[in-house]
Order: sequence, then structure tokens, then C-alpha cells
Amino acid sequence: MSISSQFDSGNIEVRDASNPSDIRLAIRHDAGGVFMQWFHFRLHGVRGQRLRLVIENAGDCSYADGWHGYRCAASYDRADWFRIADTFYDGRELVIEFTPEQDTVWLAYFEPYSQERRLDFLGRCACSPLVQVECIGTSLQGRDLDVLHIGSGPRQIWAQARQHPGESMAEWFMEGLIERLLDAADPVARELRERASFHLIPNINPDGSVLGHLRSNAAGINLNREWHAPTLAQSPEVLHAQAAMRKIGAELFLDIHGDETLPYVFIDGSHMVPGYGERNLALQAAFLENLKRASPDFQTEHGYRDDRFTGEMMTLCSKWAAATFGCVALTLEMPFKDNANAPDPRTGWNGARSKRLGAAFLQPILDHLRLLAD
Amino acid sequence: MSISSQFDSGNIEVRDASNPSDIRLAIRHDAGGVFMQWFHFRLHGVRGQRLRLVIENAGDCSYADGWHGYRCAASYDRADWFRIADTFYDGRELVIEFTPEQDTVWLAYFEPYSQERRLDFLGRCACSPLVQVECIGTSLQGRDLDVLHIGSGPRQIWAQARQHPGESMAEWFMEGLIERLLDAADPVARELRERASFHLIPNINPDGSVLGHLRSNAAGINLNREWHAPTLAQSPEVLHAQAAMRKIGAELFLDIHGDETLPYVFIDGSHMVPGYGERNLALQAAFLENLKRASPDFQTEHGYRDDRFTGEMMTLCSKWAAATFGCVALTLEMPFKDNANAPDPRTGWNGARSKRLGAAFLQPILDHLRLLAD
Amino acid sequence: MSISSQFDSGNIEVRDASNPSDIRLAIRHDAGGVFMQWFHFRLHGVRGQRLRLVIENAGDCSYADGWHGYRCAASYDRADWFRIADTFYDGRELVIEFTPEQDTVWLAYFEPYSQERRLDFLGRCACSPLVQVECIGTSLQGRDLDVLHIGSGPRQIWAQARQHPGESMAEWFMEGLIERLLDAADPVARELRERASFHLIPNINPDGSVLGHLRSNAAGINLNREWHAPTLAQSPEVLHAQAAMRKIGAELFLDIHGDETLPYVFIDGSHMVPGYGERNLALQAAFLENLKRASPDFQTEHGYRDDRFTGEMMTLCSKWAAATFGCVALTLEMPFKDNANAPDPRTGWNGARSKRLGAAFLQPILDHLRLLAD
Amino acid sequence: MSISSQFDSGNIEVRDASNPSDIRLAIRHDAGGVFMQWFHFRLHGVRGQRLRLVIENAGDCSYADGWHGYRCAASYDRADWFRIADTFYDGRELVIEFTPEQDTVWLAYFEPYSQERRLDFLGRCACSPLVQVECIGTSLQGRDLDVLHIGSGPRQIWAQARQHPGESMAEWFMEGLIERLLDAADPVARELRERASFHLIPNINPDGSVLGHLRSNAAGINLNREWHAPTLAQSPEVLHAQAAMRKIGAELFLDIHGDETLPYVFIDGSHMVPGYGERNLALQAAFLENLKRASPDFQTEHGYRDDRFTGEMMTLCSKWAAATFGCVALTLEMPFKDNANAPDPRTGWNGARSKRLGAAFLQPILDHLRLLAD
Ligand SMILES: [Ca+2]
Ligand SMILES: [Ca+2]
Ligand SMILES: [Ca+2]
Ligand SMILES: [Ca+2]
Repeated sequence: MSISSQFDSGNIEVRDASNPSDIRLAIRHDAGGVFMQWFHFRLHGVRGQRLRLVIENAGDCSYADGWHGYRCAASYDRADWFRIADTFYDGRELVIEFTPEQDTVWLAYFEPYSQERRLDFLGRCACSPLVQVECIGTSLQGRDLDVLHIGSGPRQIWAQARQHPGESMAEWFMEGLIERLLDAADPVARELRERASFHLIPNINPDGSVLGHLRSNAAGINLNREWHAPTLAQSPEVLHAQAAMRKIGAELFLDIHGDETLPYVFIDGSHMVPGYGERNLALQAAFLENLKRASPDFQTEHGYRDDRFTGEMMTLCSKWAAATFGCVALTLEMPFKDNANAPDPRTGWNGARSKRLGAAFLQPILDHLRLLAD
Repeated sequence: MSISSQFDSGNIEVRDASNPSDIRLAIRHDAGGVFMQWFHFRLHGVRGQRLRLVIENAGDCSYADGWHGYRCAASYDRADWFRIADTFYDGRELVIEFTPEQDTVWLAYFEPYSQERRLDFLGRCACSPLVQVECIGTSLQGRDLDVLHIGSGPRQIWAQARQHPGESMAEWFMEGLIERLLDAADPVARELRERASFHLIPNINPDGSVLGHLRSNAAGINLNREWHAPTLAQSPEVLHAQAAMRKIGAELFLDIHGDETLPYVFIDGSHMVPGYGERNLALQAAFLENLKRASPDFQTEHGYRDDRFTGEMMTLCSKWAAATFGCVALTLEMPFKDNANAPDPRTGWNGARSKRLGAAFLQPILDHLRLLAD
Repeated sequence: MSISSQFDSGNIEVRDASNPSDIRLAIRHDAGGVFMQWFHFRLHGVRGQRLRLVIENAGDCSYADGWHGYRCAASYDRADWFRIADTFYDGRELVIEFTPEQDTVWLAYFEPYSQERRLDFLGRCACSPLVQVECIGTSLQGRDLDVLHIGSGPRQIWAQARQHPGESMAEWFMEGLIERLLDAADPVARELRERASFHLIPNINPDGSVLGHLRSNAAGINLNREWHAPTLAQSPEVLHAQAAMRKIGAELFLDIHGDETLPYVFIDGSHMVPGYGERNLALQAAFLENLKRASPDFQTEHGYRDDRFTGEMMTLCSKWAAATFGCVALTLEMPFKDNANAPDPRTGWNGARSKRLGAAFLQPILDHLRLLAD
Repeated sequence: MSISSQFDSGNIEVRDASNPSDIRLAIRHDAGGVFMQWFHFRLHGVRGQRLRLVIENAGDCSYADGWHGYRCAASYDRADWFRIADTFYDGRELVIEFTPEQDTVWLAYFEPYSQERRLDFLGRCACSPLVQVECIGTSLQGRDLDVLHIGSGPRQIWAQARQHPGESMAEWFMEGLIERLLDAADPVARELRERASFHLIPNINPDGSVLGHLRSNAAGINLNREWHAPTLAQSPEVLHAQAAMRKIGAELFLDIHGDETLPYVFIDGSHMVPGYGERNLALQAAFLENLKRASPDFQTEHGYRDDRFTGEMMTLCSKWAAATFGCVALTLEMPFKDNANAPDPRTGWNGARSKRLGAAFLQPILDHLRLLAD
């Protein structure tokens, strides 16, 4: 039996793999040593063996409470990901027990989304006459920051994903949103392309994604605390995105995330941003209502408390966008675990459900544009 | 150059094909000699030739006015269907002019949907654990009347298509609705499967469909005038469907159609049915409103006058269902031409757009179920 | 429980289906009443029931001996076909016993190949710049006789399939041969397209195929006994094909068949045709040798005796071609059962294996062309 | 306009990209500074502009003569790769001129094959009951060295690819060979799986492949000069492979490569290895003859001189295998350019043609096994 993680978004430290029924592992910190929780590794030579894997430093992770109720994602073919029922957290260690049916099995915190997948997806999109692909700059390690420009309408809509690179559901979401927006037969997409111009950043933290980080870029910086004052030295990803955004403006801003703890899909709005105004409050409330109708996976009961980010609020992307553009700016959070209102024991929340949510977003966005037009 | 139509839903009579720039054609009547307008044929040996096809009896067709503004559907590969811009109607003849780019080209009144495609589709569905396939009887010529039963909820929802076999868009619609309803990752589908039991008849007139009829079954009977008193001798398709429906009941009934004349998607409701009641009126109005939000291809401005069917009203399927089950019962009409509110010059209204509409229907159906539950 | 067969190539007569453990069936004769053995039907409402189906007139079929060792083909989704192990023949009745896992199951003598599948396949081919599609005439019932012309070389190669319509493996074979011949990256295909011009008739008996016949066209005529004197009245399929062949000539001729009795792939050559000559004998021997190397499914040990067709020899297609064009002309036979040299208990011989054999034929054809060029 | 290469197998140094009609580039050395010739980069913001790219250090590359007659590979979607006709080499610089049709275009020395593609491919294979996946060790940077074990026969056959990581055609070849070997309907594959056990290493230098190297691993070591004495410190890839090979033995050994200079597919045999013996000489000659028949892309006229590797001969993989196992051991070389005997101006030699060659190899391997059995 052996374990490896030298691939896109791989992350594990093998402390002792000599005993299949007591494999001792640790999650590697993001660069900078502040964050950790994402893991992704491959097990070899394990068919038919009862395995017990122990992540020894689970209790030291960024959102250790998130392990309660969490079940590990696994795949034999890297396409179909299922959850391992026997995943336990005792407040210190995360224990994963199962008997693989194949020689090789992949385990991850969540169904991964690789750079190669994104580049292939961009390649397909780029050949659509409906799309312009623009590289607005590069990350610290020199990876492209790609924006897809779709539509020809006067309203400007931005969406970006994976500031926190371990939240791969965010990129699945973007794939779903973009695929539907390019569907020539979909009347919602068609009206959207006429009413607005979309500016979509599938991955704003490509370094952190490849490196297997949870929350930070190659320098260990949490990009979603940089929007007040990004720098070329430590957060060029934000700096470049802001420049592009300022040039174009925004009448709706979406920042796509995952949440380690809450087993729900929810939105953190910008109502606490000074000067947000009555109109945006009303538009935001309408957006949430309309999204709830378009996707039963979305709900408004569970979410962050309004004072969660008080001190650092203006360092956050969506709050910055709300203040800068005076528009509705929303942070979407999807679960690492499952939607407790509609659990799927086999898959938990996964890439496919994130894609459907991305597609469903077109509906409240259209409603938003119609309200703007009124 | 030669012309053939001996295949599923083929329909044309070649009067004179000796001159490519003046090909004289006629549409064949449905059995019974009452209806005609559907056509579907194949041209051979035509690459690079300027063709002029004249359908001489266009003016005698069932909905001759429908030819105004109509453009012929065509395909080289039977998968991608486009419209022929140079389609003209002078009140008597329909003239189609174009220069094929391939040896062979297929022409049809609308993108066809064959029996083999349905059987293959049923085959795929049948292997889903979410589906039960039931044969509720056979047509006059012995073809199966298949119902897909999906979902386990207490509300009973029926949808059926292609009473009028020339309206192939109706079967594309069903494919779209069914595919989404079986999508394991779609939360709307999931909630629907929990709240209701669906009973879906993709094609209730399989004989007429294969025979290339416009409006009738193998005996030339318009099934949508038989619901007051179907008989085994001339409308067993309706008789069998009614029996199955009565056994199960209905809390929503959808009958899917195409309309030859109006370039819009619209619904003919059952508000004119005696005893429909306030609640159904309100539910029906809500359904239309919710559908309009879910699909910009749907509209409520253009449609049939309420007195269109007065004398024969109770012979129609959806009116019969409204009266029998006391539920909301709707007739959906899609255009043979295009949606004039969102025209697509290349394709007109087509199979893919019909499928998207079928998928979009899940939203107002869910809204309906929630209202029922209130 | 019910049984139906009103679809492409359907064939069964239900004598008594009242008792699932003793379903009494009969195969319907081809038109003309001479031939029968093909069957194809669908069972409804059978999930989880132990079925016993009895084909009562199996012993009266054209090749009754062929039932020995035969196992019925079945499919739940019309895509994956498997064999039913418990198929027995007692010299009079064929008994099929199994417990379906789905509501609906399809049974057939062999994995079917429908007209719609052919038309879709032709549609895809027609859009390749490497192909010209020609309709060389129509069948008795007006179905197209399509020829695919592929390649630009000086040697003329003909292949045709399904004279005997119940031999659907022959059309799978053609699909495999044609797909490989159109593969832009395959060097064998490429050299073939440069050395020769191929003229390929995927189905020369489209009526019989749709009608669910075993061996004859719509008039009940065995086309492979018509090549000495075809007529417009009873064998237009042969008449039209001959005219096209005479115009072009042939330097290799392949007629693709299935055999009811022998569990082997074999070729019946034309060495018994007067005047075949030493060169053709040598070329034929080389072809068989080269095919054996290219496809281990082919063998030369088992086959027809040379005197099998003595009296009627010149009425057969390949013998007629050998005599007319002075070229190597071969009749390929594939089993309805399995290849006893390499049996696959799950599938028996099937469509996929027939396709691989069609693809493998490119090798001996290339060898043949090289020998011709020497 | 901008240029990037921070992705799997990316390699370029941008010296001056300020002027689209004179973009100055250089290829980056492999680690160790000895080798260079592979390049792979992406251009942004270039739609509709006439570009002139100059690789300034082309003349210093490992096989500078290979640039003569070479045309750059390019793709808009990363799936369809074409060649740029206006690629020129003047003995010092390589100049590439073209006008991209899309915003973004990818350029490479040859159609790339990424680690993610391999891992996805392994994932699909791993779920076949015909395959066992084994990790035999890791590379210098910790990437898995995967072997696919296929088949259950007594003869041991090894194939490996991408010792030289810039030769991505070698991995396409492996994909083609493996896909065919797993085809349940292919009788050649089936007989092979019965006669032999295959041990297939799709990529024996995964570090060099990701790093965009031409010929070496992460330490800059040319693995194909290490087989006499591999070390854990600088060539663990060879060390681990040798260990696995010695345990199993070999009766045929294939090492898959690309050649920068010759526009032909050829094999460098092991006849110059002392003690190769008459039998292996005959078997090797038969293999080449049989491959020539199975793939017209293969030829025996052009190739390496027998004394090419004299001094270092025993450091080469296939020679080592010949000496160690006393078996036929072959080095396959495919062109970076095209097969001059069958040129395809649009694609040159590419991934698809490499895959077809891999599939065609099954034929001479089967012939080899039959000869061994005699
Ligand atoms: Ca987050
Ligand atoms: Ca209608
Ligand atoms: Ca036959
Ligand atoms: Ca090499």
C-alpha cells in the first residue's frame, strides 16, 4: 500500500502508512502556515482491504468544527465521487474507514476541479462565437487570470470563484452557470445575453488551487481579506481583478464560495455595508427570494450572522464591490458536507449539484435585470 | 435527382421531379382524407443545384393560413435542422428555394421525432431506478402506448403529447421534461419526485406519428375530439389513456401540442369549463405566471380566443380532464414557425428549444404543488 | 404482462400470453410464406417474474437445425444486448426461460439494426468530405437503396449487406467497415482511399429489414437467388444494384451475410465458378489468409461444402459478380450464435463484434489491392 | 497581447512581446541545462492579428537539425491541433507566422498529453475488470509510476513510454494500445489477453513531462542513458521499473519514443546487442514485417544507423532489456513532424495517428506470440 499526492491540488502528509488499519496522516498547511483543511490524495494497492485512515491534525484545522458531520469524498475513476459513510471526528482526529473495491482510490475534502479541466473548459468556450476570453493578468506564480466575457447588453455582471482555492465547488458552480449561459436554445440565457454583459472569472486563485491550499494564494495570503488594498507583491490576483472591474463597472456582483461548517446553501449579502441603500436592500431581498424559487437547494434560514466580519468587512470582495459599485453584491456559500434539507447519502453535496445551482442562478439574475430595467 | 419518403413520418407525393428548378409536390392526406399539412421527405443527388420546390396543395391544407411566415425545416445529417429562408406562400402554393450543400438533404414541416428515437429514449429511461415503464394498451395498428411513472409523492400529475402526430415538438418537449425530472442532481426534480407521482405519455398517437399524419390516428380520427366518448374501434389510444387516468386521478393535467399559425408559445387553459372553480382559476393563473418567469419563451398575450372550441369543448382532452378530475388542465401550444418574441433565424422553433421548455415546466409544476400543499 | 412487435423489424405472433410461465408464441412467416426464423418483440410488465416463452413453430423454421446451441438475444435498453443462457430446443419448440430485471425487455433473434439507425448513420457519413451518397433506386415498397462512394483510387470495390434482412449482423459489419474507412487518422483507411474507390450498400433489402423478414424482400423473394435475372416486379433491389455495378465494374466483391447454423465466421468463395481462374484462386486464398491474421474471429476450417449451391449457383450474388467481373467475389458468413473458437457467454456474437470484423476487413482488402498492383 | 506557460508541460521564455509582428522567444532548458527543444505556451489577445514569433535559440536546441521541415502545432480549444504552415528555420531561429482566429491560441512542439489526462485515463481503465493498476514507485518529485497489468497469459510483455518527456506522441501511442487491448469485442485483444500478460507504463518520466522538459527527469538526467546503473538519487524512475521488470521477466519489450529529425515512423531494434541470437533476429525481423503490414505508417527504409549508440548502447532501455531478458526489445520512434510517406498537411503527425499506431501494434505482438508458441 502506498499514498501519493503529487498532482493538481494534492495535499497530504503521510506519517505512517505501514499498517492499513491504522494509517496516520496529516494535512499540509497552505504556504504561510496559517490555513489548512483541504486534502486530496491517492491510495494504491488497497483493493479489498479494510482501511482505517486517521488525519491526526484535523483538530488543528482552520474550521475544525466543520469536521462534525463531515464525510470524506472518494472516487475510483476520478469522475464519479461518493461519500464514505464511516467518517468520524472526535474533536481531535478525523477517522475514515472503508474497504476499497479497486486497486486505486482517490480521496478528497471535496470533488476536485483541476487547472487542466479549467483550461479544457475555457478552450471549448473560447470557440463559441458568444464568448470573448481575456487574460487580465497573472497570479503570483504566473498562472493566467482568465475572464470570459459573454453577452452584449448594457448591464455589467461579475462573478468570480475560488478566492479560497479549497472550495472547488465554486468552480463547478461557474462551469454550470457558464454552460447554461452559452446554451443557444435556452431562452433565459438568451435574454440575459441581450440584457447584460457577463464577466466571469472561473478561478481567481489558480496558484492556491494547484497547490492544494485551503484559503490562500501562493504567498499564503487570504485573497478575500485583500480587497481594501491589494498589492502586486502579495495579492496580484485581486489587484488585476479590481482593475478590470473598475474599468467596466458592475450592476451585480457574485463571489462564489464554500463553507466548511454549515450544511446548507446560503448567501451572505451586503446589507451591512454602509450606504448600501434601500434599493439594493430590496433588490438583494428579491434576489434571494427568486433564487429560493429557482433552486430548492437554496435557503435563507441558516447563514452567517451579520456581525461575522465586522472588523474586516471592507477587506472582503463582495463588500468592497457593494461599496465601490453601489450594486447588489453577494457571497454564495455552498456546503462541503451536504444540504441538510435535501441530503444525498451517496454523494453529499458535489460537483454536479454545484453545477445545477450555477445554472439555476440565471433565473434570479434575469429577475434582477428586469427589476433594474423597471 | 430523386425524392423519397418511405421512412418514419415520411409524407410527400411527387407530381413531377424532372426539373430541379420546378419540382412539383403535394402533401398526402392523413388516412380518412380530412387533414393534411405535415410533410417529410428526402432529396437525393442535389448538391450544389439551385432547387425550387413547389407544394401545390399547400392552400388546401388544414391550416393554410399557417403557411404565411413559415419557413421549411431542413437537415443534411438528420441531427442539425435549420430553416430555409426562401420559403414563400402565395395563398395557394408553398415555394421552397435553396441550394443544398450535400448530396442528400432532408426536409420536413418540423424537426421530426421518430418511433425508434422514442423507443431508444424509453430504453434509457427504463434502466433508471427512478422510473417504471408501463404499457397501458396499444394503438389501432398495435403500437405500444407507454407511460413513464416517475416519483413517489401523493399528488398525481399527467402529461401527454402528440395526440396530433404532426406536432413533433410535443415529443421533444416530453424528452426535455423527462430528462430533467430524472436528473439526480437537480433539486427541483428531486422535490417534484417527492411531492408527486408523474405519469407521462411521450406519444399517445404512435400510429399517426409513423404514418406522417398531421392530426389523426391510423383511422383518420382526430383524437383530441374523442375524449367525451372514445371507442375501441376508432380511438383506442384515448380509451386506454382514460382508463389509466381514471384509475390514478389527476391534480394537474398537461396536453402538449403545436400550433400551425401563431408564432408564439401559449397555453389554452380550462377556465371555460363549467365548474372549474375559483381555486383552479387561481392555480391556473399562477401556473401561467410562474411559467412565464421560468421560460421567457412563454407568453400570455397571444393565444386562442376562449370561444374557439365552444361547441366541441368537452371532446377535448384537457377540458375533459378539467371536468373529470376537477384539476387544472392545460393545453400547451408551441409554434411550427418561431417564437416571434425571440426569433432565431437559423433554426426557428426547434427540437432543442422544445426540450428546454419541457425542462422549464418543472418550475411552475413545483409552484403548483406547493400551492396545492398550502 | 403483454407482448408487442409493431416496430422496425418486429416479428412475433402471440398465441397465448395469459400464463407467464407458459407463453405460447409463433414466428410469423416472411411475406410469401416460404421463410421464417427472425423474431423480435417486446415484453411488458415482467420485472422479477420467472418467464417461460415457447416458440411453438421453431421446428418449422427455415433452418430449424440452427436452433441447436442457439441462445436468445435480449436487452433492457436496446443498446446493451445479452444472451439468455436458458434457451433450449427440443427439435420442435424453442423454449426461453429467464427472470427480467426491468419492467420491459426486448428479445430478438439477433441484435437488431433499424432503418432509422441506418438513416442517422448515413446522415453522419454524408457530411464527411470523403463520402458521396447516392440513391441508386428504390425497393419494392419505395425505400431508398443508398450507396456510399468513398475513395478516389482506380480499383473498384463493392460491398453490400442484408440481402437476407434477418441477418442484421451484416449491417453492423458495414457500419464498422465504413467508420474505419472514414477515419482520417488510420493509415490503412487512407491508403485504401487512395488505391481504390469503394461502393458500399449498407442495406440492399430495406423492406425485408423493416418487415421483420428472415430471407426475403416485400414480395417474399430471396434476393440472393435473383442475380441471374432480376426483375423490376419482384427484385428491383437487385436490378438497381446490378445496373450500378455494371456501370462501375468491380475488382473485389463482398456480400455480407449471417448463417443460422454454424457457430463460426467463414467465407464462401467463388472458386467453383467456371472461369474463375488461377489468379483469382490465388488472390482469394491470399484474402482468406490475410483476413485470418487480421481477425482471429475468422477461420477457414468450418464452412459450406463446395457443392452446396450447385444447381442455383449462378443465381447467387457473389457468384454472379465473380462471373461478371472476373474478380474475387466473397460471401462472408457470421454466426447468429457465437464464434465457438472464442465464445463470449454474455453476448454471443453481436453487433460490436460484427463491427470489429468489418473494420478488420480493411487489412485483407489492402493486401488484395497491393497484390493487384504487383 | 500576452504569453503564458504556467501549466502542465509549459515551456517558453518571453524575451520581448511588445511587438506582435516580432515576438522574441526562447525555449527554456530542461533542469540541468543540457537539453532543450520542447515548447508549449499560450497566446492571449491575438484574434485577427498577424503574428510573427521568433524562437531565438532554436539553433542551440538539442536537435537543431530537426527544425528543418518542422511546422509548429497549434490549437484553439486544446482538442483539435493543427500545424502552422508558415514555420521557417534559417539555421539559427525558428520563425512562426500566422493570424489566429480566436482570442486565445495554444502552441506546442507537439500535441501535448498532460498528467491530468493520464490520471483520468488510468481512472477509467482501473474500473475495467480486465485491469490491475499498480504503483511501482515514485519519481524524484514524488509522482506515481503506474503500471497497468492486463491479461492472464504466460508470456510477459512490457511497454513503456515518455522516458523522454517531450515526446508526448509516445503517451498517445500508449492510450491507443491500451484502449484496444481493453476492447471486449476485439478478437485480437482477446487472444492477446489470453496468450500474454501485459505490463504497461504510460509514462515513466512524469516529472519531466509536467516540467516541460525535452529529454530528462527533474534532475536533468536522460533516463534512457541510465539502464546500466540507475540510482535512487538521480534515476529512481528507471530503478523502480527495472525492479518490477526483473520480478516478472519479459518476452517482448517495447520502448516508445519520438524523433526530432526523421519524418518517418521507424524502429530501432536490438540486433547490435551481443548475444541477441538468431531466434531474436528472426523474431525481430518478423515483427517489423508484420507491423509494416498492420500499419502503412510504419516503414523500415529510414531509421538510425546501427552504430548510432555504440559507446553508450548498454545504457539504453531496450538494449538493456534485450540483454537482460534475452528477448526481442524494440525502440519505436514516431516523428515530431509528419510521416513523409503519407503527409497530412493539416495535422502533421499527431495524437490521433499515434493512437492508431498503438492500436495497430496489437497485430505484430499477436504474431510474435504465435511465433513464440510454435
Ligand atoms: Ca470561503
Ligand atoms: Ca394541436
Ligand atoms: Ca444469408
Ligand atoms: Ca527519444
